[in-house]
Order: sequence, then structure tokens, then C-alpha cells
Amino acid sequence: MNNKTSVKVAIVGASGYSGEELVRLLLSHSHAELTAVTSRQYAGQTLAQVFLRFAHLPHAKALRFSEPNAELLAKQAQVIFLALPHGVAAEFAVPLLKLGCQVIDLSADFRVRSGAVYKEFYAHDHPAPGLLTTAVYGLPEVYRAQIKNALLIASPGCYPTSILLPTLPLLRAGLIKSTGIIADSLSGVSGAGRKVEQDYMFVECNESVRPYGIPKHRHLSEIEQELSLAAQTPVTIQFTPHLVPINRGILTTLYLAPEKHFSDAEGMNALNEKISACYQSAYGNEPFVRLLDGNALPDTKNVLGTNVVEIAWRLDARTGRLIVLSAEDNIVKGASGQAVQSFNIMCGFPETAGLV
Amino acid sequence: MNNKTSVKVAIVGASGYSGEELVRLLLSHSHAELTAVTSRQYAGQTLAQVFLRFAHLPHAKALRFSEPNAELLAKQAQVIFLALPHGVAAEFAVPLLKLGCQVIDLSADFRVRSGAVYKEFYAHDHPAPGLLTTAVYGLPEVYRAQIKNALLIASPGCYPTSILLPTLPLLRAGLIKSTGIIADSLSGVSGAGRKVEQDYMFVECNESVRPYGIPKHRHLSEIEQELSLAAQTPVTIQFTPHLVPINRGILTTLYLAPEKHFSDAEGMNALNEKISACYQSAYGNEPFVRLLDGNALPDTKNVLGTNVVEIAWRLDARTGRLIVLSAEDNIVKGASGQAVQSFNIMCGFPETAGLV
Amino acid sequence: MNNKTSVKVAIVGASGYSGEELVRLLLSHSHAELTAVTSRQYAGQTLAQVFLRFAHLPHAKALRFSEPNAELLAKQAQVIFLALPHGVAAEFAVPLLKLGCQVIDLSADFRVRSGAVYKEFYAHDHPAPGLLTTAVYGLPEVYRAQIKNALLIASPGCYPTSILLPTLPLLRAGLIKSTGIIADSLSGVSGAGRKVEQDYMFVECNESVRPYGIPKHRHLSEIEQELSLAAQTPVTIQFTPHLVPINRGILTTLYLAPEKHFSDAEGMNALNEKISACYQSAYGNEPFVRLLDGNALPDTKNVLGTNVVEIAWRLDARTGRLIVLSAEDNIVKGASGQAVQSFNIMCGFPETAGLV
Amino acid sequence: MNNKTSVKVAIVGASGYSGEELVRLLLSHSHAELTAVTSRQYAGQTLAQVFLRFAHLPHAKALRFSEPNAELLAKQAQVIFLALPHGVAAEFAVPLLKLGCQVIDLSADFRVRSGAVYKEFYAHDHPAPGLLTTAVYGLPEVYRAQIKNALLIASPGCYPTSILLPTLPLLRAGLIKSTGIIADSLSGVSGAGRKVEQDYMFVECNESVRPYGIPKHRHLSEIEQELSLAAQTPVTIQFTPHLVPINRGILTTLYLAPEKHFSDAEGMNALNEKISACYQSAYGNEPFVRLLDGNALPDTKNVLGTNVVEIAWRLDARTGRLIVLSAEDNIVKGASGQAVQSFNIMCGFPETAGLV
Repeated sequence: MNNKTSVKVAIVGASGYSGEELVRLLLSHSHAELTAVTSRQYAGQTLAQVFLRFAHLPHAKALRFSEPNAELLAKQAQVIFLALPHGVAAEFAVPLLKLGCQVIDLSADFRVRSGAVYKEFYAHDHPAPGLLTTAVYGLPEVYRAQIKNALLIASPGCYPTSILLPTLPLLRAGLIKSTGIIADSLSGVSGAGRKVEQDYMFVECNESVRPYGIPKHRHLSEIEQELSLAAQTPVTIQFTPHLVPINRGILTTLYLAPEKHFSDAEGMNALNEKISACYQSAYGNEPFVRLLDGNALPDTKNVLGTNVVEIAWRLDARTGRLIVLSAEDNIVKGASGQAVQSFNIMCGFPETAGLV
Repeated sequence: MNNKTSVKVAIVGASGYSGEELVRLLLSHSHAELTAVTSRQYAGQTLAQVFLRFAHLPHAKALRFSEPNAELLAKQAQVIFLALPHGVAAEFAVPLLKLGCQVIDLSADFRVRSGAVYKEFYAHDHPAPGLLTTAVYGLPEVYRAQIKNALLIASPGCYPTSILLPTLPLLRAGLIKSTGIIADSLSGVSGAGRKVEQDYMFVECNESVRPYGIPKHRHLSEIEQELSLAAQTPVTIQFTPHLVPINRGILTTLYLAPEKHFSDAEGMNALNEKISACYQSAYGNEPFVRLLDGNALPDTKNVLGTNVVEIAWRLDARTGRLIVLSAEDNIVKGASGQAVQSFNIMCGFPETAGLV
Repeated sequence: MNNKTSVKVAIVGASGYSGEELVRLLLSHSHAELTAVTSRQYAGQTLAQVFLRFAHLPHAKALRFSEPNAELLAKQAQVIFLALPHGVAAEFAVPLLKLGCQVIDLSADFRVRSGAVYKEFYAHDHPAPGLLTTAVYGLPEVYRAQIKNALLIASPGCYPTSILLPTLPLLRAGLIKSTGIIADSLSGVSGAGRKVEQDYMFVECNESVRPYGIPKHRHLSEIEQELSLAAQTPVTIQFTPHLVPINRGILTTLYLAPEKHFSDAEGMNALNEKISACYQSAYGNEPFVRLLDGNALPDTKNVLGTNVVEIAWRLDARTGRLIVLSAEDNIVKGASGQAVQSFNIMCGFPETAGLV
Repeated sequence: MNNKTSVKVAIVGASGYSGEELVRLLLSHSHAELTAVTSRQYAGQTLAQVFLRFAHLPHAKALRFSEPNAELLAKQAQVIFLALPHGVAAEFAVPLLKLGCQVIDLSADFRVRSGAVYKEFYAHDHPAPGLLTTAVYGLPEVYRAQIKNALLIASPGCYPTSILLPTLPLLRAGLIKSTGIIADSLSGVSGAGRKVEQDYMFVECNESVRPYGIPKHRHLSEIEQELSLAAQTPVTIQFTPHLVPINRGILTTLYLAPEKHFSDAEGMNALNEKISACYQSAYGNEPFVRLLDGNALPDTKNVLGTNVVEIAWRLDARTGRLIVLSAEDNIVKGASGQAVQSFNIMCGFPETAGLV
């Protein structure tokens, strides 16, 4: 597909936060032509009417939301982004794939490879279990080769991205134990989606910091699946999400146990160098992973609006633990930006196209 | 001192956030007469001029900031609150105690009982090591009896309060292991004090969530001292503070290991009941500890402006861990409110006077 | 009613922001006994269950929300606070008054004296027009004498309070023209009430500043009514409300034309002194009006959680205009605090009881 | 300069908010090559070290801050952006112009054409009065032709841009009176620059809304100069800036008097059409002015991070006034974006290059 200069794309469910961000990214993507956006709520209105922030762009004045219809979409676009609630995405993926489209799904519907695990976490049978094994988990830093040839991409969740990117290289290299992993995450309010519920009202979130959804968050299923693959043994982790009063961003603090105990400064330096080498090897050439050095620590404001994930780590001589920290924009690297990154790989475009 | 209706009090260093909150609490305290407030920066100005929010109160119009002077203060007040930076407080405590005052120190100067530990964490010799053993750690829920007769109270820090109150009863009861404790805390920006530094500017904090000061925060010294006393064995913990964009509040998430492994629902229920009984026994009658039940989880907005600490917990059957969460207002229960609570106990007033 | 130490009170519609603040104020009011709170949504649950922030108070654990029922309420309380949506309040006020209760209504239902004006702004006939003339507009600084003997108090809205208090004395004294008045107001999000609508979601309000409801806001009816009474001539004003990302607070900027043109420094000084004397005379002894002097300007953070309204003014020699600025907490002085202030006056209690 | 594909540019004073935004815009500008950034504070450090958000860009890793030196800068770049405090910019502009550079100054130093007006508002003689008449006021929608050939551009302030763009067409068309204009503006905290002062600390700004700098703000000098030119008569306006707790954005509400009184619906409709036609004629083809229609009103969140200014208006039949509202990102259209827009015009590049 390399010699195409642009590919026709559509967004199903374009009215949520991820959908809106996909619109923003794809409208200015030099290799994508946005030909359809769907929304039951806004069908008939133009992008410019629904999203005032795009209202001055000619294309946004022309493109109207339509009712989602797989047959029509298949005629309008080659690659379809699904920005739908969990459970609804699969309904569209199945016919779209049959009609010859490539699908990039931002929901959780195809992230888990096992129908049994899906049922455990989502409380119902998977609607299209046959696709679970063909879907590619769209984490480019890990599955770039598979994404290149994928027909169905299950783009990772925001929490999983913030946890997996810092952890996978260490597990693969055997530098940390696969047991006892704790991930403590802070998420901006857009992470809840454009849900009109009292919990997400301004007055309920502003001046508020609070945990939620513990101890068994649905994202655990995909996180543990990928950690287990890296560790080559089943991994169970502790995960605590918190809601913090920012629009966008996830900050994750990981508590990890080095495989090798360090008992003195020399041992600590040696381990530090191994971790550094491990991360350099994994991400030194990645365009969207920023390894912080010196005294710098991740900060959500430094990744706001970008597809970058920041990673830093500290060894603690007092406790023997390794603390790894990451920051990302939950709507970009945690959702729509990562989906566009996969799109670029899938279509043979420069991986950073439309993302810098 | 029971039959006194009111006690003369002074605040040294009344211009910071803790000092300002002490002013607020003591101005409306029916058993305290605020006779002096000191501030080098504002000496000569009235409370009403410096703190516009009190400007309509007659007493705030009359009371002027003065230069701090121990001899003068000892004539003006019986109980002196020190809301000074670490290291400076001790300089005032020593002469004030000699002059017969009772001192409630909000700094870290007297919280650690060992001069060696103090030096390890604060990087200089303690200026008055003789007082370290006479000072009482002002956590009323733990040291009420000692506070009653104290001459020098070392009021706990905001992070320590949010960590110790949920953890101490479990350690004392032997319900959790003393090893492997992790405290992950989120603090509002007032926790940094009224420091005019770039890190705490609005634009640097708003839309930002970030860790800082890891892995060895100074507050660890007092936290580990108190945990060790409860566990009757040396305790070393992992502590990660984060800065979140709220004015006030600390939310702490504690990762704990139950002493007794639970392998099934029955075991989990039994343990749950033991933990519940332990907390009920420790705090069931405490006016400022709110044990949450049902589905409720701590939220900083629910303790804003109050002297209450909220506590909830969850057992995680998947990992075998106990997660305990707490929320407090870092300037009230984490600083000035707790100091007033100690004042009430020390003077024989109702413990909730001026705090509800 | 002077010799009663306490009065039984009830709150109808206690689950909104004003209702919740009334709960807070009345639970700690030494002359009020809260005997009933109603809420269709929460009937059967205790105050402690619905409002976690009160959960540690014994009374909050005991008092349950009930379905609103006038006959029952009339047996439970002497003074009834109505914190209901506009239009609904009147339905309760009528039977409660017949049953001998005194009613303090926080809605707009009885603020306008003319049924015709009500219909113009609220688009339907008034449900109880006979009560419009007996209701007292509950602005204590203006109608204290009438409040003392009132059976039905129409407590003013948040915008009106922030506009009327700074303007009325100047109009009464003939210091400003009654024409050309502009009020530009900024309101925190709680001003919209606890409405679960997309406009008030965190992500829609945070990092957003926007006007709304222009040019004909409903509050204009009561504002212009009171301004006209003070000016003794019909007054029409320009009013522009804006939504700003704070929980609480209203900041109003008033653009006024001095009746007497000032052409030089001397004239300006003379006018300044007249304005100062006018405000001193009106508010010098008011416990809840803070006249700022020197360089100080109103700031919502300085009135947060208090019943105080701050007022400052500036004459502009370049334009000949008088700029007056006010700040208040929209839920306290702009709603529930003011209602309690009226309650105190009505019952003969100290006017500041429960409010400092 | 049309046939050049890229121009070498430098930023003097690149460490403030406007400077940082210039860095962001110019690093990704396909026709600009950023060859030098200066900062006394950060000289010697790379862009990547100082601004972590750019740390993954190869160019940011290579480019180091230098001490500002006109002779060196003139060798490094053709177009120099000055993002310096008022008063300091002129010191660099003079030698740079002599050395043959083109200068785009973001400070107020060359915005006022009269040395006397400059002195009145800035309280000292202008350091280079000879340049005041050659400088071009860099508002592209008004001075596009002059910008094309300018050597020195005085890029407008953030408040002036938000006030002038909505007002100038109406004044030029004689649709509004030149007297009695009121501009009430709300600014995000970045408008104060990266000043480390107590007023701009997080805790002082969060949950705070307040006016400041009234009644005679320095920006009035350039605002009134441009309004007077449009009205062809001296114009004096009322301007009240307020600080609101957002990072970025200015919302301006303008109170204007239509030249022609409208007394009925028909007159109002006719005037509405004239205003609409006036704005369409002025801005219908402007890439960075968004005229809102229907019920839409400006909102700072809809222009965040963009070079767009939003404009809407309402006629008020009750008062006879015209209310015009505008929203912009104070750091983009109000500063650095507008400067890049002028750069594009000056160099013959597409006007939207690097800005969409």
C-alpha cells in the first residue's frame, strides 16, 4: 500500500472524546482522507456544527455525521476506526471485515485473546470469538510487525498503555520478578468518556482526588495478558486507578521487585545500568517514547496533546524496589494517537505522520 | 486547667498556609484568645490587612503582626503555636519552654525521637536534642494521654497523618505484615507551603500530575518511627508523593500484606471482619475518623475544610493484598486542625472545640 | 420568638447544592433543630449516606430523607426552607403557609411582586399570585425590618445579591444615573445547580470560560424590580453572566455613570468621598458586607465558604465612569447563608448565628 | 522572498510562555529553520533539557540556548523573534535592524506610534522613537499589506487582539458609536507571563476569580490608537481585565452602542443583517477568524492551542446595546501564533503554514 498517497478513512462513533480526537488527527493527516463520520445522536449535522473547534475548516463544514451503516461505510472508506463503547464495536467489526475493510477498534472488544477471560471481566460471552485470535493488539512498540499486516487492530486502552510500555522490556529481560507488581494510576476525567453522569460533573471532580473501580478493573484482563506473554508465565497484578481533576493525562507509578537483589551502591549502579540498557534497547529509537534522564520525572503536562509516553525510574536502596513512572495523554497515546500510529504502520506511511 | 474558660494563645509564623488556618480556627475558638501573631514579613500590619478573608472580624482589625520575640510572647500567651519552617521552630521552642509556655510545634523539628535519625534525614545535627525525648508526637488518636500532660507537642506532618492513622491499628493488632508496606500519596499544592517557586505556579500545576521527592522523602523518618513502635520491630516503607492540582487534600493509597493468607471467600470474609473490628475498636468513638462502609471510598472533597480523616479498605482476592485508602485536608487534620485538637486535649477543653 | 432557644426547621429539596449547604449550616446552628429533610430521589436514606461529608455527625446518621409532604412537615417544623426548582416551590409554600408554618423560599417563585413580570420572564402564569405581595424579599441589608415579621421570605438569587448590594445605596443616594447600568458577572459552576447535563461536565468546564444566557436572563426580573424601587423610576440594565471553572463564587463588575460629572482631580476626590460615605452609611455596621479599601479588589477565594460579600470601587478619570466590583460565595451569601441570615432575623436570634 | 523554501529564524528570550510557544510552532514549521534560541537563565542548556515536552525531537536535543548577542544572531538568522519583557526588546531591535535582520517583536515596545503616548503609559521616554513610525502593527487581518514589506513588526498584545478584531470592522463601517465602548476581559494565568510571584501561585489562582490593574491598563494605549484610526476620531474606552483559573485563553465581552437606534423587531433584524454583512466582509475569508452563528457563543476551550479567534454578537432589544464576544488563545493568536502568521506573510509563505 506504500505507493498510495492517501487512504480513505471513516470514524464510527465520532462524537465521544476519542472520536473527536480522531477527527482532529485525521483532518490534518496528509495521508488520510476522512470520508465519513457516524453518530446516531448527531446524524445530519456537520462536523463544524457539532465540534465548534473545527468549525473554520472547510472539510468540517462539508462533512456530515451519518447513521452508522456497515455497507455504506465499506463503500466510503478502506480503513474504519471504531470509537464505540465496549460491546458495540464488535457488532460493526464483523460485517466491516467481511466487506473487505480494515478495522482499527479503540474499544476493548478484541484486546483479549481468550473468550473465557473476556467473559470473566465483561460478564457476557464474546460476540465474535473467532476474531479474537486474528486481532492484533495495536501497541506499535511491541507488535509493529504484526500491525503491518493486520486486518483487525485492537488498539490498547489508556491504562494498559501506561503500564505495559514501562513494564514489558523489564519482564522480557528478566530484570524484574513477575510477581507482586503494583500499578497505581491517576487519570484525567476525559478517561471516563463523554458520559453525562453526576460523578463526572465539574463540581464533583474539581478539588477532588479519589480512587475508583477497585480492586478488579476491566483493563486488568488485557494488562495481565500482555505481561504474561512477556514474562512467559501467568502474571497477576495489583491495579488502583484514581480520578484527578485534569482534562487529560495518565500518570502511572509502578512498584516492581528487581529479580536480583542489590545490597550496596555498586550493585545498585550495576542494576541501574542494566535497566538503562534495557530501556535504550527497547525504546532508544522509538519516536513516541521519551526516556527521561537526570532528575526529570514524568509530568502529564509535558505530554499533553502529544502521542508521547514519558518513562523514568528510580531504584530505592532502602527498600530494594524499583519504581517506574510513566505519563501519557490518555486520549492521544492512550487512544486516538496510538490508533493513528497503527494506521500509519498498517498503510505503510511514515509512522509519525499526522502525529507531530 | 479544666476550669479555665479560655487560654491565651499566640501563633509564631502566622503568614504561611498552616499559620493562616490556625488564625482562622483560633479566631472562632470559644476557649482560645488569640493575643499575638508574628511574621517578619508583615510586622506592623493587622490580620485584616494581610488576610482579606478575615477583614470583617473586629479582632482581625485590631490584632497586628509583630516581630517574633520569645520573651514578649511568653508574657502574651500561655500556649504558643509554632508554624515555622523546619529548623527554625526549635530556636523558638527552647526559650519559650524555659519561660514556662506550652509549645505546639507544627514543624518537623521534634517529631523524631532520635537525633541520629534526624541528622540522617535533615542533614544537620539537631539543635536541641535534649527535647527530643520529652516532646509528645501530637497524634491524638494514638497519644491522647501523653498530650494531656505535654509541655511540647510535635504535631505530625500531613503525609504521616494520612499514612499512620490507617496503618497503626492493623500493625498493632498483628493483622498485617510489617514488611513491604507501600504508601502512594497525592497531595494538593498547599502542601508545599506558601513558597513562591516556579514549580508551584498555577500554569505549572494546573493540568499537571506528577511525582516528586522520590525515593527518600523526609517525612519517612517520623512515619517509620511510629510504624516501628506499633509493630515492635523496625519498619521500612516505600513512599511516593505526587502533586495534584487541588488546593487542599491528601489521598493516600496503602498496599499492605495481610499477616494471614486468605485463600477463599470464607477466609476473606473472616479477615474482613477482623479488620472491621480492629478499626471499630481503634476509631469507632473518634470524633475525627470516619470509617467508610458500603461502596464508599475516600474523596478529598468530602473532608475539605474539616478535621476529619476518611478511611476505607478492600481485600483483593486476586492478589491477596489489603488496600487501605485515606483522605484528609492536609492543612486541617494534616496540620492546623490537628494542632488545635491537641491544644484542646492539653487544656482540658472538649476535643472538638473550634473544630466543628 | 426571642425567648426560644431553638426553632425546629425542615429543608424541602435538600439534595441540591443549596440544600446541602443548608444542611451544613443548620446542623451546626445552635438555635436550629433540623427535624426533616426531604428528597424524592433519596427518600429513606440517611443524611450520612447521601452526603458523606456529614457522615461522622450523629445527627446525620439518624436523620433520614423523606418524601416531601406538607402536612407532615408542618408537624415537624416551624420554619421550612424550600430549596426547590423554580415553579415547584410555590406548590409547597401555599399549603405550608396555610398550616401555619413560616417559609423561606430559595427559589425565584416569590421574588417578583408582579404577576405580569413573572409571566414575562418565566413564561407561565404565577401559581399563587396572591402571595406575591405578602412575600418579603430576603435581602437583610435592605429589608431587615420586614423580614422580622415575615411569614414568607423570597430569598434573593445569587446574581441579584451580587448586583443589588453594591448598586442600591448609590441609586438611593442619587449618586449614579439609573440608566445605562451594566452588570458583567462570572459564576462558578455550582451556580447551575446539581444538574447532570453535558454543559456542566468537568471536561466541558475546565479550561473553559464562556458567556451564556444572554441577553435576557431570568434573574433580571428581580434585579430590575429592586433597582427600580431604589431609583424610584423604572430601571433596565444590561446583564451578562459567564461560567468560570471554579466550584463556588460570583464576581460582578458593574459599569455605572456618576450622576455628577467629575472633570478634575478635585471633583474626583469629592465624589470618591461621597461614595465612600454612602457605602459606610449603608454597610459600615453590616456583619456580612466587607468594604475594601486601599488597593484591595474583590476575589472570590476570599469569600469562599462565608456569608460575606466584598465590595470595592474605582472612579475612572479617563472615561468618567464608576466601576464597582463585588465578590460572594454563590451558595452562601448567594443562597443558603442569606436564607439562614433571614431565619435568624425572623426568629430573633443573633443575625450571625450559625454563620461565622 | 517567495522562492525560498525556508528562512532561518531565531528567538530572543525563548524561555517565557510566548517564547516556548514560538519554539513549538517554529520547530514544526516547514518553512522555518530555527537556528538560535537565547536565554540568559538557560544559556548552555539544550532545548530538550529546558523544555521536557520537546525532549524527544532531534532538533531540540541539538539546539542550545545562548546568551543574546545581536551580532551573532544576525549571522545566524534572517528573521528574529523578540519574546522579551517590555523595554528590553527595543535594545535588541535597534542593532538587529541595523545589521539587516527583520524583527518581529512580541513586546509592547513598538506598538504605539506616538512617543508621548508611550511615555504616558510606560512612564519613561521611548528608547528608539525613530522606529515607532516605521514599525508595522502586526495584526494581519488589518495590516496584511504593510506586514508584507515590513522590517519591524510590533506584534499585538493578547488583550488588544481580542478587543480590536471584533470592534474595528464595526467602527470602520460606522455601525457603532465611538464613545462609551466597554471591554470586559477574562484572561488565563499564562497571560501574566512566567513570573514567579505570589499572585500567580496555584493556590492563589485556583478557585479564584478577580479583577486587576484597573482602571488604566497599559494595553489601552495600543487599543485606543487602533480604535481611533478606525473611527477617525479619538476613542477612549473602558477596559477591565480579570484573572480566571485557566492556563490559556481570553474571553472578551464588549458593550457597544449601535450608531442607529433600533426600536422594533424589524429594526433589530435590519441591524443584525448589517452587522453580519460587515463581519462577513471583514472576516469571511480570514483563515483564523471564526464567526459563530446560530446559538453558539465563544468559549476559550474551543480555541485552545489554535490561532483562531471566535466572534459572536447579540443585539439586546431591552437596552438597545450590541454585545460582541470574542475568544482566543492568549499565547497563540494573542502572541506567538499571530507572530508566526506575520512571519508567513512577511516571507511570502502560505499564511497558515505551521499554524494548522
